[in-house]
Amino acid sequence: MHRSRLAGFMIDCRTDDLDTAAEFWSRALGYPAGEPEDGKYIKLGTPDGEPYIEVQKVGHASRIHLDIESDDVEAEVRRLEKLGATRVEAVRTWVVMEAPDGQRFCVTRHGHKYFDETANRWNEEGEQQ
Amino acid sequence: MHRSRLAGFMIDCRTDDLDTAAEFWSRALGYPAGEPEDGKYIKLGTPDGEPYIEVQKVGHASRIHLDIESDDVEAEVRRLEKLGATRVEAVRTWVVMEAPDGQRFCVTRHGHKYFDETANRWNEEGEQQ
Repeated sequence: MHRSRLAGFMIDCRTDDLDTAAEFWSRALGYPAGEPEDGKYIKLGTPDGEPYIEVQKVGHASRIHLDIESDDVEAEVRRLEKLGATRVEAVRTWVVMEAPDGQRFCVTRHGHKYFDETANRWNEEGEQQ
Repeated sequence: MHRSRLAGFMIDCRTDDLDTAAEFWSRALGYPAGEPEDGKYIKLGTPDGEPYIEVQKVGHASRIHLDIESDDVEAEVRRLEKLGATRVEAVRTWVVMEAPDGQRFCVTRHGHKYFDETANRWNEEGEQQ
C-alpha cells in the first residue's frame, strides 16, 4: 500500500527574472508572493490546505504543470505507468512524467500539511483503498 | 470596484476521446470524474471550496491552463492588461489572455460557491481593497 495526492501547480516561466514573473502571478491571482528558494522558485500564499501554486524559472517553454506527491515515489510512478503515463526523467528527489495526451507532470515526495488525512491509498494493483 | 479570484485549472487534452482522457486524470489524482458537458468538458470531484479541475477536449496542443473568475470580466481583463497580460480573443462569456511569459489563461464569469467570501476586491486603479 502506498499513498498519493495532488500536491499543487507549478507555473513554469521562461524568464531570467523570477521576481517579476512571480509579481505578475501574485497580483493576477491576489495571493502574496513568498521569498525565492534556490533562485528558482517563489511560492504564492494560497489558502490553508489547498494545492500549492509556485512560480518556477525554467529554460523550456512557459507552461503550467501539476505535481502529484507520494510517500513512495517509485510505487506511484509505477501506478501511473499502468494508467498510461510514461517516465521522462528522474531529477533529484522527483520524477518527471508525461500523461497519455502529452502534458508533463511530476511525482514528488509528500509534504502536504494534511497528507495523512487527505491522501489516496492504493494497493499493489493500483486500486483505491 | 470589482472582484476576482482563481477559479480553477483546466487540463486541456488534444484527443478525440474525452472519456479516456478524464479517466486517466481521475485515476491519477484520485478524484471522481463527473458527466461530460457539451461533449467537451468533464469536471473532477475536487474537495469543497478548492479550485476546480476540469478535463477539456481541445484541438490545440495539450496543456494545463488556469481560469480567473470575476463579477466584471471586462474590468478584470483591463486590470490584467495593466499588469502586462494581453488579450487574445473573446469566446462567448469568457476572454482568453496571455501572461507576460506566455502562458494562456482565461477570465470567466464568476461561479465559485464561496465567491462572495473569498474573492479579491480591486479598485479602479487595480489596487487590492
